[in-house]
Amino acid sequence: MKINYLMPTRIITGENCLYAERQFLSGLGKKALIVTGNNSAKISGAYDDAVKTLEANGQRHVLFDKVMANPTDACVYEAGLMARREGCDFILGCGGGSPMDAAKAVAVLALIDLSKEELFSAAFDRALPLAMIPTTSGTGSETTPYSILTDSTGSVDKTPMKRSVSSPLLFPRLAFLDAKYTIRLNRNTTINTAIDALSHAVEGMLCLRANHLSNMLAKEAITMIMDCMKDLLAFPAENPAAFPPEKREKLLLASSIAGMVIAQTGTAVPHSMGYLPTINWGTDHGRANGLFFKSFLSWCREKEQDSADKRIPALCSALGTEPEQFFDILELLLGPHEKATETELQAWSKLPMKNAANTYIKPEQKDIERIFRESLG
Amino acid sequence: MKINYLMPTRIITGENCLYAERQFLSGLGKKALIVTGNNSAKISGAYDDAVKTLEANGQRHVLFDKVMANPTDACVYEAGLMARREGCDFILGCGGGSPMDAAKAVAVLALIDLSKEELFSAAFDRALPLAMIPTTSGTGSETTPYSILTDSTGSVDKTPMKRSVSSPLLFPRLAFLDAKYTIRLNRNTTINTAIDALSHAVEGMLCLRANHLSNMLAKEAITMIMDCMKDLLAFPAENPAAFPPEKREKLLLASSIAGMVIAQTGTAVPHSMGYLPTINWGTDHGRANGLFFKSFLSWCREKEQDSADKRIPALCSALGTEPEQFFDILELLLGPHEKATETELQAWSKLPMKNAANTYIKPEQKDIERIFRESLG
Repeated sequence: MKINYLMPTRIITGENCLYAERQFLSGLGKKALIVTGNNSAKISGAYDDAVKTLEANGQRHVLFDKVMANPTDACVYEAGLMARREGCDFILGCGGGSPMDAAKAVAVLALIDLSKEELFSAAFDRALPLAMIPTTSGTGSETTPYSILTDSTGSVDKTPMKRSVSSPLLFPRLAFLDAKYTIRLNRNTTINTAIDALSHAVEGMLCLRANHLSNMLAKEAITMIMDCMKDLLAFPAENPAAFPPEKREKLLLASSIAGMVIAQTGTAVPHSMGYLPTINWGTDHGRANGLFFKSFLSWCREKEQDSADKRIPALCSALGTEPEQFFDILELLLGPHEKATETELQAWSKLPMKNAANTYIKPEQKDIERIFRESLG
Repeated sequence: MKINYLMPTRIITGENCLYAERQFLSGLGKKALIVTGNNSAKISGAYDDAVKTLEANGQRHVLFDKVMANPTDACVYEAGLMARREGCDFILGCGGGSPMDAAKAVAVLALIDLSKEELFSAAFDRALPLAMIPTTSGTGSETTPYSILTDSTGSVDKTPMKRSVSSPLLFPRLAFLDAKYTIRLNRNTTINTAIDALSHAVEGMLCLRANHLSNMLAKEAITMIMDCMKDLLAFPAENPAAFPPEKREKLLLASSIAGMVIAQTGTAVPHSMGYLPTINWGTDHGRANGLFFKSFLSWCREKEQDSADKRIPALCSALGTEPEQFFDILELLLGPHEKATETELQAWSKLPMKNAANTYIKPEQKDIERIFRESLG
């Protein structure tokens, strides 16, 4: 049994936990750069709470609120410069996965001059302390050592490509989980982020590096998310605030637990595949992963017939359903799939899939093509 | 749902993991003080592996091997002075709970002059980095922020008393879990340490501070230990090495997971009660806790009839048995209980029980007396 487990983030949860437990924040520094998008942190109330809390702690702050969805390298370099110019000594990431992932890179760039390649190869030895306030329940970025960025000229043909920075230095010191910031999330965002969290836990169980501790966490996250499925399917689209608050709370904690999973295991091939609809069509990250699950899991089930390494039974036990029933629920949540053109299908199937080698059964190019075709054909 | 979760220790497991993953140790410092008892670390092979690994890393070391069972304040002050005199910049705790608990206090005393009261009230702001190599599967000290010491003049009447130092600074940086160090443990030690780990997980579920994450960990640890019960009951006393190695591995990881539980929750009243047979009679720590479980859990079950806070059902679900069946197994493991004199029963029942207030139903003095009498009368 080989394990190498690390998740050093302090997780603080509960209504108004940021203000109530503000003494933990006060140890982080004297001046924060608050890294957010231009919208959700403010609408959710998280930004106001952050400001109130920092002021109560006697900590100064400046705001960088230009993080876009799928943040670019240019964005984090700009924020890093701002942190440096303003003399910030800690970073507060506030929002969904994009602001939190950006905040992590900013924590490094605030301290060190790095080329883009140095950043992506984690050629750094320090980072400012980070605190995170997630306002969605999907990314799990608050408990991972990863920053996923869009490298604007990363591909062979100089088109944009998702790339990740991975370093234990990027684990946040603090994660404040307050589900009140998620109560206004609409049907699409609630469902897509839930699928994202679910995909982390499910893929975590199907990664080569899965181990006893990561599987324990994955099963817990999966059980929690599946326990919210009935409510997700019946989401009150006209009144998101009517979605049960205790399920919001459960989804938020489950997404952090799923983050703890991928912090150990990384993700499997659906995440690599999902980046393509996201980058090319703007498909939400969680949805983009979900689109491949039925085909990917069916393929796993077929392939593991001939393998000693059987994982689908344990996954089904965590899901509490047989695969077919799970697919039915998932497809109801997703609705009709986006369709790729034949050109896209052929081009995407030939691209290198970084996480293929991390998947417990390594898919070949023909397998990737099959999963693309079944999912988006 | 209020949670405040922290467990920053990197857990590395597997045969020969210390040497194989020695690069993690090399980040800790240039010269280690190895803190052990005079025996088990050497017999188990852990000490030799530590020396070999430090040498391969080019790290120097000195040895402090005078930690006794239930280490005293005098012992940790002596080792702290040695670390300082020798210029050690990190501490390697190697052995069972006693050396590891001692190592934590030494990590502080090596850096700061502290009175005994300052030490026990955690009036310190730094500690040397710590790495732990457990050689038993009970204490979980490798994943907790606690150092349990015997204060030689701690009681009101100046007799010895168990006291704890608690600080996030005492979380080890690294825990290396290699079950090969436990294969020679005899029946008594194997069973008593398994009961210790089980008591951490069970009490963790019955502490006021139990939460979703600590309960997830507790259930996992309980399930893993219960899965070893058949083998523990059939322990091959004449040949400890015949105990199944995969169960040794399971018990070792379970004890670390149970440590992660009490790192969040603390322990409940059986731990406070157990210190009395340990200090007065030398009863093994794990056994001392186990002696009270049947009576304590029966009392909990009675009391929670009138409470909204019902925890015994979830505990039974984790145990996979009804309480009576669990008691039968436990009593088979423990064998006949030690007997206290009437004078002891009366005196002990009147002592303050530190963890009573941490227990989900706070026992009164008459309840404590009942549990003492039922367990040791």
